[in-house]
Formats: sequence, structure tokens, C-alpha cells
Amino acid sequence: MASASTASRVSCGRDISCIPEVADTLAAVAKLGFDFLCMPLFHPRFRREFELEPAKARPGAQTRSDLLLCGRDWNTLIVGKLSPWIEADSELTTERRNSEAALVQELNFCAYLGLPAFMIPLKGQRCANLARVLLNHIHTGHHSSMFWIRVPLLDPEDTREDLIENEPSKQMDDSSSEEKTWGWWHSFRTLCDYNKRICLAIEIGADMPSDAVIDKWLGEPIKAAILPTSIFLTNKKGFPVLSKAHQRIIFRLFKLEAQFIFTGTSRHSEKDFRCYLQYLEHLNQNRPAPNAYEMFAKGYEDYLQSPLQPLMDNLESQTYEVFEKDPIKYSQYQQAVYKCLLDRVPEEQKESRVQVLMVLGAGRGPLVNASLRAAKQADRKLRVYAVEKNPNAVVTLENWKFEEWGDQVTVVSCDMREWEAPEKADIVVSELLGSFGDNELSPECLDGAQHFLKDDGVSIPSSYTSFLAPLSSSKLYNEVRSCRERDKDPECHFETPYVVRLHNFHQLADPKPCFTFVHPTTDMNNNRYQCLRFTVACNSVLHGFAGYFETTLYKDVMLSKSAGRALYPARDSLPGNVLLRNVDHGPGVCVFWRCNNGKKVWYEWAVTEPVCSAIHNPAGRSYTIGL
Amino acid sequence: MASASTASRVSCGRDISCIPEVADTLAAVAKLGFDFLCMPLFHPRFRREFELEPAKARPGAQTRSDLLLCGRDWNTLIVGKLSPWIEADSELTTERRNSEAALVQELNFCAYLGLPAFMIPLKGQRCANLARVLLNHIHTGHHSSMFWIRVPLLDPEDTREDLIENEPSKQMDDSSSEEKTWGWWHSFRTLCDYNKRICLAIEIGADMPSDAVIDKWLGEPIKAAILPTSIFLTNKKGFPVLSKAHQRIIFRLFKLEAQFIFTGTSRHSEKDFRCYLQYLEHLNQNRPAPNAYEMFAKGYEDYLQSPLQPLMDNLESQTYEVFEKDPIKYSQYQQAVYKCLLDRVPEEQKESRVQVLMVLGAGRGPLVNASLRAAKQADRKLRVYAVEKNPNAVVTLENWKFEEWGDQVTVVSCDMREWEAPEKADIVVSELLGSFGDNELSPECLDGAQHFLKDDGVSIPSSYTSFLAPLSSSKLYNEVRSCRERDKDPECHFETPYVVRLHNFHQLADPKPCFTFVHPTTDMNNNRYQCLRFTVACNSVLHGFAGYFETTLYKDVMLSKSAGRALYPARDSLPGNVLLRNVDHGPGVCVFWRCNNGKKVWYEWAVTEPVCSAIHNPAGRSYTIGL
Repeated sequence: MASASTASRVSCGRDISCIPEVADTLAAVAKLGFDFLCMPLFHPRFRREFELEPAKARPGAQTRSDLLLCGRDWNTLIVGKLSPWIEADSELTTERRNSEAALVQELNFCAYLGLPAFMIPLKGQRCANLARVLLNHIHTGHHSSMFWIRVPLLDPEDTREDLIENEPSKQMDDSSSEEKTWGWWHSFRTLCDYNKRICLAIEIGADMPSDAVIDKWLGEPIKAAILPTSIFLTNKKGFPVLSKAHQRIIFRLFKLEAQFIFTGTSRHSEKDFRCYLQYLEHLNQNRPAPNAYEMFAKGYEDYLQSPLQPLMDNLESQTYEVFEKDPIKYSQYQQAVYKCLLDRVPEEQKESRVQVLMVLGAGRGPLVNASLRAAKQADRKLRVYAVEKNPNAVVTLENWKFEEWGDQVTVVSCDMREWEAPEKADIVVSELLGSFGDNELSPECLDGAQHFLKDDGVSIPSSYTSFLAPLSSSKLYNEVRSCRERDKDPECHFETPYVVRLHNFHQLADPKPCFTFVHPTTDMNNNRYQCLRFTVACNSVLHGFAGYFETTLYKDVMLSKSAGRALYPARDSLPGNVLLRNVDHGPGVCVFWRCNNGKKVWYEWAVTEPVCSAIHNPAGRSYTIGL
Repeated sequence: MASASTASRVSCGRDISCIPEVADTLAAVAKLGFDFLCMPLFHPRFRREFELEPAKARPGAQTRSDLLLCGRDWNTLIVGKLSPWIEADSELTTERRNSEAALVQELNFCAYLGLPAFMIPLKGQRCANLARVLLNHIHTGHHSSMFWIRVPLLDPEDTREDLIENEPSKQMDDSSSEEKTWGWWHSFRTLCDYNKRICLAIEIGADMPSDAVIDKWLGEPIKAAILPTSIFLTNKKGFPVLSKAHQRIIFRLFKLEAQFIFTGTSRHSEKDFRCYLQYLEHLNQNRPAPNAYEMFAKGYEDYLQSPLQPLMDNLESQTYEVFEKDPIKYSQYQQAVYKCLLDRVPEEQKESRVQVLMVLGAGRGPLVNASLRAAKQADRKLRVYAVEKNPNAVVTLENWKFEEWGDQVTVVSCDMREWEAPEKADIVVSELLGSFGDNELSPECLDGAQHFLKDDGVSIPSSYTSFLAPLSSSKLYNEVRSCRERDKDPECHFETPYVVRLHNFHQLADPKPCFTFVHPTTDMNNNRYQCLRFTVACNSVLHGFAGYFETTLYKDVMLSKSAGRALYPARDSLPGNVLLRNVDHGPGVCVFWRCNNGKKVWYEWAVTEPVCSAIHNPAGRSYTIGL
């Protein structure tokens, strides 16, 4: 079994409940095109009564020999399945003890065989003992199997009932029964403390939950999806196909690189079982094309990076290179300068009036070039200052000047906050925004440069606003948790914002505006306090906040917010399991602060409703941005 | 101001709102017998509009000079009070910013004066910004003042309404309005992440909340109680006295060593203000006498200790000495052996039949002595074996034998689990129980010795049961949190049980039986699984579980459970803020396991309802007991 599918092909397995001959079955399944086989490790007849005769004394092997397959096949092609009779949380002591003993035996045998994964069904809310035995197994010994917790998207019991009594009153209850099996999973993984080796195998039935509930599932660490043959429809030619609703979830599972497991007998018996695989591959080949953002982010999904500190550190050449590749941004800047020039210089003065434009933080020059293009486009005269504090980037600017720009551009190697400008500017142009807008200290830089902007001068951008949305994500929670550093405060990594291409997450509500800054400004107090109210429609868990930003360059020329790039985590100590539940508790409320002490700027944040969290990053103890 | 009152005297302060002359006032107040003075640091006229003229430009000092008192007086006799107009959480930006600036100024001035404490009133649920500014102050600079958060036991607004419309329907709502101000405090201290410098000054009004709510408050870190003169009644002689309900809370505050602050003018004007102090001192002298347990625990309240490991370590002489001081235990053992001997040997056989009694874990001999006394009392013949694995204690036993016991007692220097007994016992007597009953592995030891107990033999104790109760305690939460060790798992200290004399805590429900062991037994599987349901009547926070135990020595001779001695903490990561709320969520459910791997025994625990916690101590990663 390939551990992750390539982009071009989907990894599929075949689930079989009873296997008389493992080598033959594996060969047959492989011949049909499956990548792996899911099978029980023990025969159902070996339902054991561990502490009792006669089972205890029964002679002979308890299950088939490991010699039937070579080690490599066990290690790569077989996913084990826990015996379905095991009820580790039974209220009957004997059944619980027997189940526990069998569970331990099967887990150990799985480790002995070195299976890549072992599938464990979750049957209800009561799962503490199952969780304990599994965690105990994971914490002892040196095996490395993954555990795929098999959970149906909808409780089969509820679906069955619906068939019988399809009353309207029944339907009313759907919203909670829809979320029921997610509640099982949430309890189980919480008991297991989000252990990374415990992930999810969702079982897709004929009936599908609402889109909101599917969104919630897709924020979970789904490694596999189980597709019973019974959910397939038959098309005119007799081939198996899926409904549109099923197709939509399959497309989303492709993005998560889930593996698929087919279960049940072929219902399209005239056709080969291959036709199911072919149909899935057909969907894969016809999946919606990724957008520009997804292409750009490919390979960096959910990968946490520390935010840049361009004021304290000098950026590297490669960083500028990545920035400059943005195809939309600079054409928008050009458009903004163009419109601004037309507004400021009437047609009749286009020869006589020269606009002074200063690029603040010119980097390697993309905004200088965009401005010059805009001037050409507008047919207006421009005198440009390219101000840059990074002496390394100034080398590039001076070369541009020598080779292209000539006297029209003056290169200034200086921090904009310290520069004594020889004249005042009509227009200042800058791109100082970080993944959360003001988090690279654009407000402080531009305020420091405002004294050389004419009274009627224009700043491009003229304003920017950060946005936040609550999110839930096991993956990101675990990523943040693994950032713990030995020598720092134990909560430090939960009090640091990250730059990340958010991928395997569930956004709990639409983003809301947080901090807005306008340039030029009369109020240079850039501290902020913002109370945000989010209405979360479903039962969920808050793991942090996704940060976005939006900026108005000039009048209607905007850079609108793209996919989430900033993450403000929530400490595990308190809000980790805050249930922001709309129905019971009203909206969730959180507070964000932007603070400074004259030397540094930092954010603090807290949840205040329905229950309070601790204030994150008090006094900037875990994360600050140097001025 | 004395930082903690001595047992014999209560520390009292005088609260005054307006002080024209600080040195004179302090002298006058001291003359009346007060230990300290509470006063505002800034004059109300200095209500500042920080960012606006004319306040900004107003000449002269903002408040009185620090030269008016000597440093030592500021450091020990003055508690500062925040200006009451400050509303750091105002929804009006200007008011919020001005309040913030004034708050920072007052906090800094308090630090400059080096006051021992600064009192900050909490006025509502909205307190995130106040919390942030205070935390920021605590995290920066090197001052050491305590912050006394002033919270009324009942919201004055609610009490006022009740006076006007005293309808039955109003009364119905009491339970939630009663808990309202505790909710303010809980939000505030949670936002402040249970900072140790932030504690509570409760304000006691004329109306008192129910006993359940008072219990809840008394689990909080109360450092001071504010007593308005208006709550005092007048007795026949014209002296101020308190109602019985008020007296009860005062008695409980004495136990927490709270300081008292008198506020308001003297309402008993014929008498001196001294009469209030004299009355409080009168209550103090007449407080209910501490019970034996409280006397014994004095000085060790809420002090966490690691449980003993008597199987792995040999106990020290001093430890035996402490055990042997228990006055009740050994007379109960004597009574048990006495009754057992009478049952086993009829009067007519008392000369012919010799009972074989083995003391398993004889230590320095107290159970041998108790057994010999019992035999004498019963007039029955006894042959005693004193089995002890600690070779150091065997020295004591051999000396006893030489000096007192003679041939009647055989001293055996051996682990009871390995001893090959020369004959079988009629009675085995042991005291192997820890603070949580079986946690020093009594079950395993006695099972290991059972083979030399006659088939009709008796074990004293014949059974024992551990008990658990959920508890809330800021103090214990902070104590556990401070046990973090650099080289261990970050959750380790929250997964370790402690031995502790529980003191400043709130028990959320009555203890329930957890694990029971019976001796002799046919089932030697000492693993256990117990699901406990607790109904918690009020809104509260779970910080862990108090452990108790009870044992039946023989028939009706018991050792009943005394005050809580064991603490099973809850990890801060999840259940720290589980709200076990009866009304909304039904009972809280938690699961406890006793596990073993043949070499070690350990406990695991988790909360499963209303929401799940992580399983604590999985696979015994943080704490085990060596076999």
C-alpha cells in the first residue's frame, strides 16, 4: 500500500470479511487493480472466552500463519481489521474483559506482522476503554502501524429508523442525529489526546449528511474513505456511478489525498469489479482543476512557518523572488498609481506637473517598475524615490537604475522612518503588509514616513483590514503542538502566530474584520482592541483563528483576501475544547489586541464567550515583532 | 500589614474612600487597633482625560507625594485602591482608552510605592481588557504587589431589585443570580491564567448567598474579606454583632487565614470604632475548636507530596513514627483481632487451640503489639509471625522480641510474597493501605501471601474501598502546575497523584466508591475499571479529584474515611475548564482504571461527560507504582 497517493492516481483497497486463503485473495485483488487488501486478522470462530475453558485450552493456532505472505506484503499490502465482536466498553464485566484481552492480542499481532494500518470500528459514544487500551498499545513497544478509526458519516441506526417512520417530526431532529457520529469520533480522539497515529476512516453511506456536517468532517484527519458497493447507482450502460452529492465528497477527499476502500460484493455482476475502480479513476481524472492559489500552495499545505520580521531581519533574495512572482498584485498596484495620477494631474497639466512618488520599502524594485509603467500608461510625469533599508536589495535597485531607470529614479539606502527627504511626496507606494495585514508593522513604518507626504498626498495602499475566522483542525493543532521548544515557556508555541497555507481545516464561521489602518492618518495610536462575535452553526472545537487581510490600494482598486494564510492558535490548556455552540450558548466571542511598548509590537487574544480562555501571549511573552 | 495572620490574632484593615491627610489617618487608624489602611492612590478629582486638553496640560502633581509616609509604612501598612471611575472594558473607545491609561498609571504608582497589595473592583462579566492590562503589568517590571480583586458575594444590582419587587417568580431565578458574581471572578482569573498574584477580596453584604454558593467561594484563593459596617446588627448593649449566617462565613474565613477590611462609617456612634474589631476578635477567640485531623494537618494544608513507594523504597524511621502516632487505628485493629479470636476459638477450646497470626508488613511492630493486646483481652492463645521486608525495621522487631515478646513472636525478615511459611495462618493482619487505599499495592501483596492463609483463614483488613469526589481549587491547581519538571513530559505533573491535606478547595459532590478489594479472594485480577457519575449542583470548574478510602478490618470494625488525603489532578489542557453543570448537561462522568503490566501498577483517569478529557497517565507514562 502506498502511504500517500500521487497526484495522478488514487490509492484503492478492497475490503473482504472472510478470507480462506490470503495469498490467493491478495493476488486476485491485485489483479483487479487494487493497491491493498483490508482483512480481519482472526477468524470469527476464534471469538474467545479468555479466562474460561474450553477456549483457554483449545489446541492449535489462533489464526493463520504469518508465513503465508512474505514480510514485505504484510508491511505494505495488508490493512488489518479488528474483530467486529469486540466490545471493549461493554457494561458486562466478562464481555469487557474478554474484549480487552482479544483487543490486546489483535493489536499485538498487527504489530508483529508490521501492518501499515489497522482498522478499528467506533460503534458509539462510549469508547473510553477502547481508547485506553489502544493508547496503552501505542505508548508501549516500537511498532509503527497507523490506526484507522472507522466511523460512519451517519449512524446506521438512525438511517434505518428513517426508512420505517419517515415522519416530519423525525426530520426535525436531524441536525443533532447528523452530528452524532462526529461526536463519537470527537470523544475518542480527545480521550486519545489527538494522538498522531490515530486517524479517521470515514464510511460513506447511501444517505449523506448536510454540507455543513460534511465540512466539519473534512477538517478531520481523514486517511481513508470506505465506499460500500451498495451506494453506487447504475448508469444506462450498466456501469456503477455515484450521485452528484457523493461525487462532491469524493472530489474533496481527493484533495486530502485520502485512500479509498471498496466494501461489499459486486452489484454490477455482469461487469468486472474493475469497473468500480475505473469509475473512481475517471472521477479523479475529471476532478475540478485546482485554482491558482492551490497550485501555488501545492506541497506546503498546513506547513507552519514563522512570520517574517522584515524590520529586524533583512529579507533574502529568494524571499523577494517569491513575492515578485505574484501576478495579480503588481498589476493592481500599477492600476492604482495610474488612477491616482489621472486624478491628481489634469490632462492640461500633464507636461508641466511632475508628481513626486516615493516607493517605501522598494525591495528589488517591482513597485518602482509598476509605478513607471503606470506613469507611461497615464501619460504623466513622475519623479521616483526608491527607499529601501536592506543594503543588499539596494544593490539590485542601483543596478536597475544604471541599466533601466536612469535619473528618473533616486535610490535611497535608508530606513524610511529615519530618512530626511529632500522634498515632500505626492504619492507614497508601499507593500509592507504581512499575512495578517499590519503584522509586519506597516502602520508604524508609514506613520514614520508621513511627515514627508504632502498634506494632500496619497498613500497607496490607502487602507487595510485584517480578518479573522474561528477554525477547527486536528492537523493544525498537532502541528502547533509539535512546535514546542524545550527552553521556552510551555505555552509559547500556542501563543505564536504562524504563516501557513491552511488546508485540512474546518472554518467555523465567515471571517470578520479585525483591525483597520488608514494612511495618511491623524491618529498615530496603532494599538487596537477588537471584540469579534461569531455564530457557529454546529457543535465544534476551536483550535485557533484563520487570519486574512484585504487592502484598498486606491479608491476601488483592491487586493482582496485570498485563502487563509495566518494562523492564531488557541492554547491547549483552555479553549482547545471550547464548544462554540450556537444553539446553547449564543455566539462565541473573542478579543484581539494589538499592543506596543515603544520597542515592539505584539498581539494578544482570548476567547471570552461562551467561556473564557486565558489571554494568549500576555505582555508579548511568546511573540513580538521588533520595531 | 502582616502578610498572614498568626493563629491567635486576626489581621484587620480599615477602608477609607477619601483621605485628606495620610499620615494622620494612618496614625488614627492604627490607634484604633487596625493593622493596615486601604485607600485610593489618586484623588477622584484627578479623573483624567489623558489624550485631551486641559487635563493633559494641568500643572502640578497628580497625587500626593510619597514623602508623606516612610517607605516601610507604604510597604506594609497601605493597601491601594483603584479609582472607581476606571472602566477599562467600556464600549466607548475614549472612555476605554482613558481608563486604560489611568489604570496603567495607578498600577505603576502602586509598584513605585511598593504597596503590599492593590485592590481592584470587578464590576461585571466584561473584564477582558482589565485582565489584559493587569497581566501586562505583572509580566513586566520587578514589583511584587499582590492584586486583590474585589468581588461582591451577590451582585448589588440584584439585591436592590429584590427589595423592590419581592415576587416568588423573582426568587426562582436566585440560583443563577446567586452565582453571577462568581462567574465574573471565574472569567477574570481564567483570562489571567490563574496568576498567583491575583487573588480574591470578597465583599460580604447584608444578604448572603446559599450555603452551596458559599462553599464554592471558599474553594477560591480568598485573601481578604470586606465587611461593611452596614451588615452589623446591634445587640442589647448597643454593640455591633453579626447574624449567625455571617458568623458562619467568618469562622470559615478564619480557617483560610483571610484578612478583614472594615468599610463604611461607624453605625454604633456611641461606641468607638474599636468595638467592631473587638467583636471580630471575640469571634476569633470563640471559633469552633479544630478537630484532631485539623490539628494534625496544621501547617501542611494543600502541601503536595509524592505518594510513598513502600515496595520499592524502604521506609524511614520517621515515617513509621508518624504512622504509629495514629491513636484510633491501632485500637481498632486490636478490637478486630479481639473479635476475630472470639469467633474462631470457642471458650471451651481457649486453652487447647493456638491461633497462628501473621503480621504482614510488621514495620516497627505496632500491629504485633495490638494483636498481643487483643489476645490478652480475649484470653486466647496466639502464635505470632512478624514478617517485614525492610531489614532496618527488622532491627526494631528483633529488639522488641528480645525485650518484650519472647518466643511467642517469630520475626521473619522477608518479603511476604516470597516467604515460605513453615505453617498456615489462621489470621493475617496488615496495614498496607495508602492514602487512596490500594495505591501502595496492598492487593498484590496480600494475594502473594494468600497461599499460606488457611482455607477458613481471615484477613484483617477483610476489605477496603477507595472513594473519589470531584473538586475545584485554584490553590491546588496552581500547586500542581508549579510541579512541572523540565525534563519530563509537559503533562507529567498533571498525571501524577499526590498526597495532600486538602484545605482551600471546593468538593463538588459527595465521594463515590471507586475500587474495592476483598481478602482472601479467588479472583486475583486486580485491574479495575470504574465509571463514576457525579451530579454537581452548581456551575463550577473541575481541577481534579479528592481521593479517600474506607476499610473493614473485621465484620463491623471499620476505619472510616477521614478528610481528603489523595489528589488526582486534571490536566490543564482539557478538563481544567470542564463545566460540570447539573442543569444543562446531566451528571459528570469520569472513568478510573487500575492497570498493571506485571512489573508496575498505575492508575489512568479521564472525564467522559459532559465532554471528554484526554486519558491521564496513559500506559503509566507519568506515574507508576513498582511491584
